[in-house]
Amino acid sequence: MTSNPLLQQPFSGIVPPMVTPLLDDNTIDKVGLERLIEHLIQGGVHGIFVLGTTGEAPSLPYSLRRELVKLTCEQVDGRIPIMVGVTDSSPAESLRLAEFSTEIGASAAVAAPPYYFGLDQSELVEYYLSLAERLPLPLYLYNMPSHTKIAISIGAVETLSKHPNIIGLKDSSGNAVYFNGILHAMKEDPSFSLLVGPEEMMASSVLMGGHGGVNGGANLFPMLYVELYQAAVDRNHGKVMRLQRKVMEISKRLYGVGKTGSSYLQGLKAGLRVLGICNDHLSSPLRGFEDPEKTQIKEHLRHLQ
Amino acid sequence: MTSNPLLQQPFSGIVPPMVTPLLDDNTIDKVGLERLIEHLIQGGVHGIFVLGTTGEAPSLPYSLRRELVKLTCEQVDGRIPIMVGVTDSSPAESLRLAEFSTEIGASAAVAAPPYYFGLDQSELVEYYLSLAERLPLPLYLYNMPSHTKIAISIGAVETLSKHPNIIGLKDSSGNAVYFNGILHAMKEDPSFSLLVGPEEMMASSVLMGGHGGVNGGANLFPMLYVELYQAAVDRNHGKVMRLQRKVMEISKRLYGVGKTGSSYLQGLKAGLRVLGICNDHLSSPLRGFEDPEKTQIKEHLRHLQ
Amino acid sequence: MTSNPLLQQPFSGIVPPMVTPLLDDNTIDKVGLERLIEHLIQGGVHGIFVLGTTGEAPSLPYSLRRELVKLTCEQVDGRIPIMVGVTDSSPAESLRLAEFSTEIGASAAVAAPPYYFGLDQSELVEYYLSLAERLPLPLYLYNMPSHTKIAISIGAVETLSKHPNIIGLKDSSGNAVYFNGILHAMKEDPSFSLLVGPEEMMASSVLMGGHGGVNGGANLFPMLYVELYQAAVDRNHGKVMRLQRKVMEISKRLYGVGKTGSSYLQGLKAGLRVLGICNDHLSSPLRGFEDPEKTQIKEHLRHLQ
Amino acid sequence: MTSNPLLQQPFSGIVPPMVTPLLDDNTIDKVGLERLIEHLIQGGVHGIFVLGTTGEAPSLPYSLRRELVKLTCEQVDGRIPIMVGVTDSSPAESLRLAEFSTEIGASAAVAAPPYYFGLDQSELVEYYLSLAERLPLPLYLYNMPSHTKIAISIGAVETLSKHPNIIGLKDSSGNAVYFNGILHAMKEDPSFSLLVGPEEMMASSVLMGGHGGVNGGANLFPMLYVELYQAAVDRNHGKVMRLQRKVMEISKRLYGVGKTGSSYLQGLKAGLRVLGICNDHLSSPLRGFEDPEKTQIKEHLRHLQ
Repeated sequence: MTSNPLLQQPFSGIVPPMVTPLLDDNTIDKVGLERLIEHLIQGGVHGIFVLGTTGEAPSLPYSLRRELVKLTCEQVDGRIPIMVGVTDSSPAESLRLAEFSTEIGASAAVAAPPYYFGLDQSELVEYYLSLAERLPLPLYLYNMPSHTKIAISIGAVETLSKHPNIIGLKDSSGNAVYFNGILHAMKEDPSFSLLVGPEEMMASSVLMGGHGGVNGGANLFPMLYVELYQAAVDRNHGKVMRLQRKVMEISKRLYGVGKTGSSYLQGLKAGLRVLGICNDHLSSPLRGFEDPEKTQIKEHLRHLQ
Repeated sequence: MTSNPLLQQPFSGIVPPMVTPLLDDNTIDKVGLERLIEHLIQGGVHGIFVLGTTGEAPSLPYSLRRELVKLTCEQVDGRIPIMVGVTDSSPAESLRLAEFSTEIGASAAVAAPPYYFGLDQSELVEYYLSLAERLPLPLYLYNMPSHTKIAISIGAVETLSKHPNIIGLKDSSGNAVYFNGILHAMKEDPSFSLLVGPEEMMASSVLMGGHGGVNGGANLFPMLYVELYQAAVDRNHGKVMRLQRKVMEISKRLYGVGKTGSSYLQGLKAGLRVLGICNDHLSSPLRGFEDPEKTQIKEHLRHLQ
Repeated sequence: MTSNPLLQQPFSGIVPPMVTPLLDDNTIDKVGLERLIEHLIQGGVHGIFVLGTTGEAPSLPYSLRRELVKLTCEQVDGRIPIMVGVTDSSPAESLRLAEFSTEIGASAAVAAPPYYFGLDQSELVEYYLSLAERLPLPLYLYNMPSHTKIAISIGAVETLSKHPNIIGLKDSSGNAVYFNGILHAMKEDPSFSLLVGPEEMMASSVLMGGHGGVNGGANLFPMLYVELYQAAVDRNHGKVMRLQRKVMEISKRLYGVGKTGSSYLQGLKAGLRVLGICNDHLSSPLRGFEDPEKTQIKEHLRHLQ
Repeated sequence: MTSNPLLQQPFSGIVPPMVTPLLDDNTIDKVGLERLIEHLIQGGVHGIFVLGTTGEAPSLPYSLRRELVKLTCEQVDGRIPIMVGVTDSSPAESLRLAEFSTEIGASAAVAAPPYYFGLDQSELVEYYLSLAERLPLPLYLYNMPSHTKIAISIGAVETLSKHPNIIGLKDSSGNAVYFNGILHAMKEDPSFSLLVGPEEMMASSVLMGGHGGVNGGANLFPMLYVELYQAAVDRNHGKVMRLQRKVMEISKRLYGVGKTGSSYLQGLKAGLRVLGICNDHLSSPLRGFEDPEKTQIKEHLRHLQ
């Protein structure tokens, strides 16, 4: 694994949590997937994260998850690293998907806590250590308390970061007290990669020492997020503030159109459809926008561009 | 399906949520499983519910879930109905397991809401209708908000109960305002089966018109729960109060020994081990009791008997 | 305090959580209050609980809370016991109101946990012990986790019940696992009074050994709740089921009309207005129904009677 | 009110949420209060916020709250503006305290949502508009969902900001997605003051356009927080990173010593005692540290200095 780009640590930059282009619940939109991957790479992203929350992984049948990993690895063909979400309620299934992903050429696994049973921190640490021990790929922790019902405590991250196979954290809590606490706790281990999920706080977290973002909007406008990230790295405040406004407009105009908790995903996929990149089907139990919302997204996109 | 005993409605009685006897995370304790099933049938239970929360279904690899259904159906051999938990974050996988269970001879499927994404009631109703439409088995709704983050509202149950393939509700919320609301809402549809999960409220819910319980303790002492159920049906108050005390002692002595949220499951499996019925391995990410807790369970069981 | 009827323990029966009749945020509807109290006493209730959640106590200025206690004590004039809610975020203010209530003739204080800071169980126990020590009145614990963010654990209730000045628990959690656990834990202390808040579970809890209810609907139809309570005490199942249906219709028709969390309170006060008992003003920050909802309540009440 | 410094908008800088020095639950530590106020003013803070969460306002009797406002105004004597927390479950009491504070010379009121009943956004907006209408002082909104059970939505803040008497927001949610959303929503109204509560995110929020912090640690080390704020305003990144480390050490060493949710408050008051500034009594229902924790705080403070 000496050539694994994720091990030139800390891995930094913009890693879009790629949406999964679908024709229906059981069929990948292959042409859309190809187009989306090229769109991301041309946008300059530093890696791709497949099968995350934005990728609707928990809704997809396993066969389709494997197919997606395979198609993505083939299309990317080593140009940038691929991180694969292996989050599952069943650790055995997480492991199985990680093994498959390794064979197929992925660079890292990303795992949120098992999300059915409520765990406590000691159970969580034991789970992650056992996973890291058996995993053939380097592992990112994935903090996502709104969906998994448990936050990975700062103390747990500190403990787990000492395992050689655990190389970073993706934090999607949105909690800046937590993320600044993590930055402080990990300051003596600068090789541990700290990425945030929500794009609204990517710039501010990079300004404070974070390493980048796993931002949904980068599916739509990869170059914008890459530039914002770079501006924050460069401490170019004027540019940060200018680009941050664009990111916030995307957040406001595209993710707030729907009435349910999946409004973000609905807006993202509808936007990709309007841009001609891929289909906007959402897998059950979620559902895509109806026509009135699609029209709104179209108008908002025109306004944004 | 004319001979499906679950369709002699409303299906009533005690249906233990069977624990899954395991040697390790990937291996069923087959001898223990056989013994457990015979123990339950000899105890007079009215059905068996496999792959529920108590069965640790979300932690088990799919191949093992299917093996468990198969072994259970073979061992039961038509003597009592088998309900199979098909709850999953992926509807396609729920359906696949239900199809397998049908071929193998199960009587009904039980599904809690998909538990990764937060759904709203309209998404939930749409999801269940689509599932019921495609499911080859009659369906029980499974209300389990502590684990799935969403309660199935009374209005949603009313709507869903009108689908011919949706035949009942297992409510594990512990919420008596909710359950009495369901009893009232469904009073004109007496064929819809209403079961409660928590054994502590089984007797009171049957006294108010409920149809029975899916009670974990029935793995240990099936006859006790069957008798308590029958006493409640018979309005034999003295007997209800006497047996209820035993059930509450089990709840207090066996489920409260551990320090984590899985104390109930740990106590249940440790108890089955002490009784010589099956192994007490808990699948990752949970873990079984250590020796000190095992000793406590042993003493408490002696005290109970 | 030898003649304190609450000390002829366990205090049992129906104790309506009296609404606070208001003309506006700062003015008691005195005529309505008089009428309401007579309506309750004629309905046969066993006590009155003022300044609870249903009494909107936390919204009322202190001067008005004291005035209400005074007017109620004068009007009741010793005919039935009066319990006074002294719940506050400030223990000193709780104590002050309890002292005032003692002088004026109240029989007991009722206190939910201080509800601004999140407490843990040991802080909670210490708080209640200190309150009981200084309180001039016997104390009911009030479990109301939806509003106070903390449940009083079964263990805490067991500990606190040993204090001679703590005489009972009003449980408004709606959680039947919890309440049956309390019934079991307190079985050796039959003088400790265990009442439930939600009327939907009053009958079932009395059937299992509970001592009565603090039920909002008893403001409207006190006799119905007294009769349902008595039927449950008498183990008269046919009557329980018949009256329970009426109670559930009230719950469904009157408390479910509004769209917000205060729909219960809005429906209750609107109903009392329709019955000609008292004004339906809700204190800020809540607000009473507008005309369309008032009309619905009127129709539903006609249907109920 | 033309000379009100809070109306030279947007009000910016460090406004410590002052702890309330207490000898016991009913007695202000007057000497400590004097010393604390002088300590803060010498540290260069831009204002003082009394009777917030850190000031334990909800635990204090009203008479003591008024006494504290009076003593603080007298001691400050117009040198810096004083903001008074008037948060209450009773709007009438909020108003009364605001009126008293006006007479005594306070500059603004700060109000979190009424925290007993669960409100929805429309009830919340109506409440704040009615408060702003009747309030004799300019009003800050105070977002504190962990304690009040409700967040003030971005849309609600937008609506409320249009009222001439509502001049800012103190956000203590810790949620950077929310705060960046607020910054974006309010970008066309640069006079609306946006402050964050948690000190861990003060610097990052000022870098993104926020106006300052209401940070507990500024009670201990006011100058540090003022310098960090200024460094962020000046875009002096090296200095920000250096001072941020100190702030994070305070957060880690002083607020994490206790085991309960009040560990932050316990550590803060214990620290002030060690520094010789004021007494460390916490008002019931909270409690101060015992000796072992006090010793730890002492050692950590030595380490910090």
